[in-house]
Amino acid sequence: MLHLMKRRQAALEPLLSALQSVAEKLSTCSTCGNVDTSDPCSICRDPRRDDKMLCVVEEVADLWALDRSRLFPGRYHVLGGRLSALEGVRPEDLTIDKLVKRVSEGGIDEVVLAMNATLEGQTTAHYVAERLETFPIRLSQLAHGLPVGGELDYLDEGTLAQALRARRPIS
Amino acid sequence: MLHLMKRRQAALEPLLSALQSVAEKLSTCSTCGNVDTSDPCSICRDPRRDDKMLCVVEEVADLWALDRSRLFPGRYHVLGGRLSALEGVRPEDLTIDKLVKRVSEGGIDEVVLAMNATLEGQTTAHYVAERLETFPIRLSQLAHGLPVGGELDYLDEGTLAQALRARRPIS
Repeated sequence: MLHLMKRRQAALEPLLSALQSVAEKLSTCSTCGNVDTSDPCSICRDPRRDDKMLCVVEEVADLWALDRSRLFPGRYHVLGGRLSALEGVRPEDLTIDKLVKRVSEGGIDEVVLAMNATLEGQTTAHYVAERLETFPIRLSQLAHGLPVGGELDYLDEGTLAQALRARRPIS
Repeated sequence: MLHLMKRRQAALEPLLSALQSVAEKLSTCSTCGNVDTSDPCSICRDPRRDDKMLCVVEEVADLWALDRSRLFPGRYHVLGGRLSALEGVRPEDLTIDKLVKRVSEGGIDEVVLAMNATLEGQTTAHYVAERLETFPIRLSQLAHGLPVGGELDYLDEGTLAQALRARRPIS
């Protein structure tokens, strides 16, 4: 802080104007809930993205983490959190109604539920899956199992049990 | 060490006899490669285990880790390591021939390859799968994806990519 005050011109003012431009320019995308300098966001506007695939995530940070891998060709929907009895987060506190509306408008073939592998994330995934089960779409969920580099004798029992239960045939 | 020498009777001698009995009693199971006080080991002798399922692991520690979850009802085969060009570990240094012999004797329906999710573990899994592909068995592999409790924005890109690629339908 003292450093900023001492160097008002060289440090404080650029920081101030940068923060000001963030405050002015950043907004939440009214379609998917992403944070960007434009609304609709750059992902929703991108014509190369597949309109038929939708990936549902809890937070904007999850969207960014997933999109970094560049493996998902479709668009996103940010719920804005997870259901939590402890923190008093109810379905109406998330953008679930908006998601259902998006799906009901048609044109979507597959919805990928990409919630965290935590208790609350999985509860949220179950709830969203129930709300979407009447629509003629493919509903899928991220795979659970060994993480990359995972060594069996360092992993928790729950992960090992899941990896064993969901074992897949070798083709 | 000084503590042990000072308390020769109370500490050193019990430790000595315990180590001696370990050295005398522990042996490697001639069937599966597990370490136990008897040969065949308690898992190979257990009549409640399913003879038709075999789980292949790299090390004894992996066998113990998997068996702690009590989810695998079958028997095991310990390879004794993993293929590694760097460390000069070749197929003949592992118990792969013995595994092929066990499978060729018949009575096994499914072989689960439970190697670590490391480069060397997966190379070993590929090699073992190739050696077993001519037998009339189901070959499967542990699932890869999000570990239990995994949060998307803390996971590495490789794991996210795998979880997305191997996403499974919600029934």
